[in-house]
Amino acid sequence: MTRQMNMSGARVNEDLLRERARCSFDVNKLTYFIDGGKEGTDGRREVEDLVLNTKLLEDIVPVDYMSHKERYENAVKKSCIIVNILKEHALRHSSFDAYKPSNMYRIQSVVKDVMPFMLHMGMFVPTIFGQASPEQQAEWLPKALSLQIIGTYAQTELGHGTFLRGLETTATYDPSTEEFVLHSPTLTSYKWWPGGLGQTANHCIVVAQLHSLGECYGIHPFIVQIRDSETHMPLPGIKVGEIGPKLGFQTANNGFLGFDHYRIPRQCMLMKNAQVLKDGTYVKSRNEKLTYGTMVLIRVMIVTDAAFELSRAATIAVRYSAVRHQSKPRPNQEEPQILDYVTQQHKVFIAIATSHAFRLTGSWLWDTYSKVTRDLSDGKLDQLPELHALACCLKAVCSADASQIVEQCRLACGGHGYMASSNFPTIYGAITATVTYEGEYTVLLLQTARYLVKAWKEALEGKVMTSTVAFMVNYIQDNNVWGNNPQGIVKGFQAVAAGMTKAACDALHQYQTTLKDYEDAWNMVSVQLAKASEAYCRAIICEVFWSEIQRHTRNLPTSLVTVLQQLAELYLVYWALEKSGDLFLYSKITKQDLVLLQRRYEELLGFIRPNAVGLVDAFDIRDEILQSTLGAYDGRVYERLMEEAMKSPLNQEPVNQSFEKYLKPLMNKSKL
Amino acid sequence: MTRQMNMSGARVNEDLLRERARCSFDVNKLTYFIDGGKEGTDGRREVEDLVLNTKLLEDIVPVDYMSHKERYENAVKKSCIIVNILKEHALRHSSFDAYKPSNMYRIQSVVKDVMPFMLHMGMFVPTIFGQASPEQQAEWLPKALSLQIIGTYAQTELGHGTFLRGLETTATYDPSTEEFVLHSPTLTSYKWWPGGLGQTANHCIVVAQLHSLGECYGIHPFIVQIRDSETHMPLPGIKVGEIGPKLGFQTANNGFLGFDHYRIPRQCMLMKNAQVLKDGTYVKSRNEKLTYGTMVLIRVMIVTDAAFELSRAATIAVRYSAVRHQSKPRPNQEEPQILDYVTQQHKVFIAIATSHAFRLTGSWLWDTYSKVTRDLSDGKLDQLPELHALACCLKAVCSADASQIVEQCRLACGGHGYMASSNFPTIYGAITATVTYEGEYTVLLLQTARYLVKAWKEALEGKVMTSTVAFMVNYIQDNNVWGNNPQGIVKGFQAVAAGMTKAACDALHQYQTTLKDYEDAWNMVSVQLAKASEAYCRAIICEVFWSEIQRHTRNLPTSLVTVLQQLAELYLVYWALEKSGDLFLYSKITKQDLVLLQRRYEELLGFIRPNAVGLVDAFDIRDEILQSTLGAYDGRVYERLMEEAMKSPLNQEPVNQSFEKYLKPLMNKSKL
Repeated sequence: MTRQMNMSGARVNEDLLRERARCSFDVNKLTYFIDGGKEGTDGRREVEDLVLNTKLLEDIVPVDYMSHKERYENAVKKSCIIVNILKEHALRHSSFDAYKPSNMYRIQSVVKDVMPFMLHMGMFVPTIFGQASPEQQAEWLPKALSLQIIGTYAQTELGHGTFLRGLETTATYDPSTEEFVLHSPTLTSYKWWPGGLGQTANHCIVVAQLHSLGECYGIHPFIVQIRDSETHMPLPGIKVGEIGPKLGFQTANNGFLGFDHYRIPRQCMLMKNAQVLKDGTYVKSRNEKLTYGTMVLIRVMIVTDAAFELSRAATIAVRYSAVRHQSKPRPNQEEPQILDYVTQQHKVFIAIATSHAFRLTGSWLWDTYSKVTRDLSDGKLDQLPELHALACCLKAVCSADASQIVEQCRLACGGHGYMASSNFPTIYGAITATVTYEGEYTVLLLQTARYLVKAWKEALEGKVMTSTVAFMVNYIQDNNVWGNNPQGIVKGFQAVAAGMTKAACDALHQYQTTLKDYEDAWNMVSVQLAKASEAYCRAIICEVFWSEIQRHTRNLPTSLVTVLQQLAELYLVYWALEKSGDLFLYSKITKQDLVLLQRRYEELLGFIRPNAVGLVDAFDIRDEILQSTLGAYDGRVYERLMEEAMKSPLNQEPVNQSFEKYLKPLMNKSKL
Repeated sequence: MTRQMNMSGARVNEDLLRERARCSFDVNKLTYFIDGGKEGTDGRREVEDLVLNTKLLEDIVPVDYMSHKERYENAVKKSCIIVNILKEHALRHSSFDAYKPSNMYRIQSVVKDVMPFMLHMGMFVPTIFGQASPEQQAEWLPKALSLQIIGTYAQTELGHGTFLRGLETTATYDPSTEEFVLHSPTLTSYKWWPGGLGQTANHCIVVAQLHSLGECYGIHPFIVQIRDSETHMPLPGIKVGEIGPKLGFQTANNGFLGFDHYRIPRQCMLMKNAQVLKDGTYVKSRNEKLTYGTMVLIRVMIVTDAAFELSRAATIAVRYSAVRHQSKPRPNQEEPQILDYVTQQHKVFIAIATSHAFRLTGSWLWDTYSKVTRDLSDGKLDQLPELHALACCLKAVCSADASQIVEQCRLACGGHGYMASSNFPTIYGAITATVTYEGEYTVLLLQTARYLVKAWKEALEGKVMTSTVAFMVNYIQDNNVWGNNPQGIVKGFQAVAAGMTKAACDALHQYQTTLKDYEDAWNMVSVQLAKASEAYCRAIICEVFWSEIQRHTRNLPTSLVTVLQQLAELYLVYWALEKSGDLFLYSKITKQDLVLLQRRYEELLGFIRPNAVGLVDAFDIRDEILQSTLGAYDGRVYERLMEEAMKSPLNQEPVNQSFEKYLKPLMNKSKL
């Protein structure tokens, strides 16, 4: 019996009971594996229990019925309750583990749309850690960590996103008063998007073009108070507000911010790296690469968040598919569970597999980063470009794949997946935003492409290649052998990545001869270059997923190893079939191989089918975090759909006022 | 100067002015072509002007800030105003053209989320036309057409969607009172989803299992009054309400409906086809196929709606991309318009082309249907299966493609595309719903697959094939020749459709020998079967688009013909590149062909680039219908974004009440 069953009073759906009875592995053991060990699970559950058992968090009306403003106010209220609980827990245990981003991300699902001060912990505090001098840290960190001040991170502007050098906000140093003058010279220079900036934060990090003594030194970070600590009124010279409703993140309180010659002390420039001295002298940063860590960290977090959102989508879709019955292929039979349809398995099992793939790839990227930074401190910089290329394409591909698969899961739940109460709309709103923020999808793929083009050139020149692009040498030497097995598929994807890079490089070369200009030629082949990056990333994820499963599973029970290997193989075969054309073009796969792969895929779906509910139970997502009528642990799908509908304010009165006001006059007029 | 420029007082963005100046064709001529002639454009514009120039329709607060209930009430108000205007216009002109579904669909964009009585005109009235006897029509049509009653169409239930035979609602005939007793025996039998059912409609068509004299005769339609005409109170025995918020269609007022032994007169069964006599005798319908027309009509409408939503998405994305500048490939140059990036052109030009492709394919399907029904009345039934197969896969593929391309356009607008004020969230909410309603995507593809499997068998047997599957014979005779031109690509896609059908049939045959059961084998290969259907559909759209452009362009100016051919070729080459792997597997394309196609694609993007803004201007979508800060005709993107944000109720007061209530206590507590 699992934890969740103990808590739920209601009867569990019969189909789900049957599914759980036939699971072939120990669900708890898989949960431990997912959490990185039993202690990980215990710690997470302790924090979740603490927060989620708080009665104060229950909504009177579901948030989807509220106005935009009510929704924000409700989110502030709930966030304050949660943060209080977490802080007390942290003080009791002298550990700030409860503040762990991964835990926060899960728990804030209770607010449904995100906590308005998500960026306080997610960006404001890390930036002070990463970019403030020791004295500045001593001043700001205690206040920030204990939430005496609430901050956010203001970088993007109305007219400027991914291209940071284009930012227009200026910070001009005035040596006579030892102050910086912040100014927004145009409408497009207004800060736009920072979460919590609207009505919540009273401080923020502002990224602005630094001017001193008539020179511009490019963008630098400043810590700026924007609202009065006591009254919360915007300070003179500050124009601040929220930017309005969006596809998702309704309660993030994303804001805008403009400065009218707003003065801040010199000490408000974050000076761990570059500095401006009292007389206005600019002192350059010793190492531009030092701020690299935060960026990689955030991209790893996005990959991990994608894994979490996929686990939510998979849990909802699999449980619903076990409860829902439809059609009658044979006259004298009951309608089967829709989970028995192979097309349905095709849509939802890949979500389970992908969640594991991304979680493990995220950890692997983080380990790689840690290794590279250790080498960095020894003065070795040569692995940085590869790390950068990996972080870019993994963020891009994982966010885009996750968005697409979340929608696939929603659509697999038919009309009911379209209901807000399924929670799919919120999950999609959250995951699709990650395709754009922290580096736009195509821009990031083209960053990776710069690396691939360079690597291809080096491979042709016979240089020693770093590990993730060593396969290019194989391709040049025509050493690729297809194999109808996981290792073979990984090699196949590597051949695709190499072949596409070669094709793009050839085209680039040709365009260069006609167009003369390298950037014009680059632009012409950019669609091909982006595809090559995606293929490279696909090869990485496939290789990492397969090898990490082999590495991790040594200490796990055999029954669990079997099912994890099935998931990893499913992932690889799924993508081999999806990209069969590319494999045909660039690897040595044959048509017969493809027929065999298709059979193997159908076989794997069959292996996973009896364990499907156990696999999503192992994600161990409490109903309060899942927030779904279709996916709750007890499977009371139809009862919950109706219960949620009955909460609609429109259903609290038999006749809505619009009848007398508008409908009746219209109907009566028609009679005349 | 266009119509829209006359109306807008504000200055038009300089970039857009430049783009419009360099358009190579007459934008108005393209608009006429889209509307099916100048009269079509004039008629549409007349109705749009009439409705959109009504000041009453302006919202005090943008609807995205409202609560669910306020939004509904606002939509009822606006819908009543619109319907009144349209009705008066119809009476003045003795023509109900303004009620044309295509016009209604465009105009209701003013309500942003859809009119609560969309299903009155869309399903209630057509069902009375199609399924009521002449006496019933005489009784109900005048009331329905003049909106003395407001109706909807209640078919799907909480537990039953696509599989209609599974519906649970019963209509049991009681000969003693000459009444039917409607009853909802279970929670899952509650009607669920009908638009307008919640609080708006007072009548509806109910589809229920007909029982008479102890026999069940399957599902039949009944016309049922559910609310009192004067008070709008639900009648005794009726439980009705709305189902709650969704991903989109927030104001559709989708409802639920349960019956507790609710009695209606015998005459409320729609009796054009089957009948129940006074004594309870059931009289069978003479022709089951007679109800076929409504279904094809609705699927054609979905294809056409997809074309419209694509034109909205394309208009927004192209105009925004012309106004937005980003990055600096060269140091001493201005940031270029993002429309100059080939990756951006790749994302948005396909939206323009696909809108034309779907509009023309929708008309073609309608013409095909008309031809088939003419033959039907001559007793020829043999083309019905092909028509059914076409309607199924076209509805499925067009809805799914449109959803994907709308999202592609949104993502191409970066963070701002995520704003509700861009209108992308609403457009996506509307278009993605069509993937599910009126026949779920995969279910429909598998319907088409049944036809393809049968056709393949007949082709092998050497039978005479109908026109859209004649290509199977070519494939069997290995007669396919690849050609790097539109006709060649069409033939290539036909080879793919044939090859995939063959592969699925081979697999089906193999599974049958091991699994014994045909339906089990069918299930195992259903993923492959669905892919074959999609390929077949792709071949159809490509062929129809290309040939319709050739046929239509004879009377158009050369400059317009050129650009239309470029769009059609772009569509074909785009998909050839997307599906290059499939073409490799089943057609005779070579690697060198692919390189040439890629070059041709890049060339076509370059041809379309200078006409991009002109092409979307030609869709002639007024700002009130586009509803987008990013896509307005004048290109005042940043001004509009800020203006919309300033309307936020949260921005009407400098400090929100949640500061004193929650944030300040949290911050102060932290100090202790």
